[in-house]
Amino acid sequence: MTDPHIGQEHISKSYDAELARLIEEILRMGKIAADQLASASEAVEERNSELAARVVERDGTLDAIEHDVSHDVLRLLALRQPIARDLREVLAALRIAADIERIGDYAANVAKRGIALNQAAPVPSAAALPRLAQVAGEMLEDVLTAYRNRDSAAAHEVWERDEQLDTLYTALFRELLTYMMEDPRNITPCAHLLFMAKNIERIGDHATNIAENVYFLVHGETLVEARRKGDLTSAMTKP
Amino acid sequence: MTDPHIGQEHISKSYDAELARLIEEILRMGKIAADQLASASEAVEERNSELAARVVERDGTLDAIEHDVSHDVLRLLALRQPIARDLREVLAALRIAADIERIGDYAANVAKRGIALNQAAPVPSAAALPRLAQVAGEMLEDVLTAYRNRDSAAAHEVWERDEQLDTLYTALFRELLTYMMEDPRNITPCAHLLFMAKNIERIGDHATNIAENVYFLVHGETLVEARRKGDLTSAMTKP
Repeated sequence: MTDPHIGQEHISKSYDAELARLIEEILRMGKIAADQLASASEAVEERNSELAARVVERDGTLDAIEHDVSHDVLRLLALRQPIARDLREVLAALRIAADIERIGDYAANVAKRGIALNQAAPVPSAAALPRLAQVAGEMLEDVLTAYRNRDSAAAHEVWERDEQLDTLYTALFRELLTYMMEDPRNITPCAHLLFMAKNIERIGDHATNIAENVYFLVHGETLVEARRKGDLTSAMTKP
Repeated sequence: MTDPHIGQEHISKSYDAELARLIEEILRMGKIAADQLASASEAVEERNSELAARVVERDGTLDAIEHDVSHDVLRLLALRQPIARDLREVLAALRIAADIERIGDYAANVAKRGIALNQAAPVPSAAALPRLAQVAGEMLEDVLTAYRNRDSAAAHEVWERDEQLDTLYTALFRELLTYMMEDPRNITPCAHLLFMAKNIERIGDHATNIAENVYFLVHGETLVEARRKGDLTSAMTKP
């Protein structure tokens, strides 16, 4: 190489291009996951088992992209050996892709249980599930925008919103137990709904994880605050 | 530096020492997680709320070690810029630590729900939970040994065993729905038991993830086999 400086610049440009491509792939994964959640919710609301089956089927797409992203991350780490902010970019990409893949799994499980649900008579409280899914879906979309824009304030806002989702989930959980007590025929469908609600609550946790990764990416330090996170129903002794 | 070769060897030895320390930390995390699961199970079996409270309290220890491990991995990647097998070691460490941290979360959630359970009359099917926890605990211990020994055959064996855990979980799920139908007073405690059983089934999934990482670490390729994984109850229409 006659001019090593030009060579270096070439490598650096190529690195930036690879990183940009990686981030685009992750945002594409995020869009698919958000669509999957919206479709799963719609399938439950409208008792549409065909739509639910399409959601279950499409879950493989997300797994495949996540696999490719992990592979690309390994390649980037091995060939480019990034440090500091670049290294954080790559590790955040790896973690965010894993979170999105899990969100897709949860959306697919909501759809799968929706199919089982449609084989029984409608349960009134099923209507509360789409509301929960809407809040979780907005968290996901907003945290993906925060990731795209490297906006740690927006990420922090999503992170705080998880508490609202937990509160909605807790109310639905109590409601479902009440329906089970009213009529034993509600028990199997409401058990599905308990897990569907839990899946959506977990989607919120993963959106929160993504928010933490965006924060870490921007600031190089962890978002630590003493907010109690997660499932408030664990300590519940009556509905 | 007078002899660059000696300098290189020094760096390499120091890298090996750092990696060995990292792996020891992860095995220590694994041991704590296995203890947490065993104690949570014992707390449920013996209706011992004090023991359960200790499990919930100790969960912070695992979170703290996982945080340190992530930090060490970043440091190793940035300073040592490992490639090939060394890079796989470091990435496997990162992922395995995250899986163990999640296993700890699930064990703590089992304990937390155990405390709620002890405030109601005993439910007969609670006895099936420790059996489930035992199978998951053995999977965890065996996959940690496979990780320590870089034994991909042993890891594969754990990976296959997850199917047994799924079958046990499905049987318990059905049993719990039946109890709920028999007596509405069983509904709240059995809803906790449904989630406790689900937590343990998820611990099996994370042990399976660790097995996949051990396989990847040793072979540099993914363990892909078309075994249906996970929760068989999602499609259940009656108990």
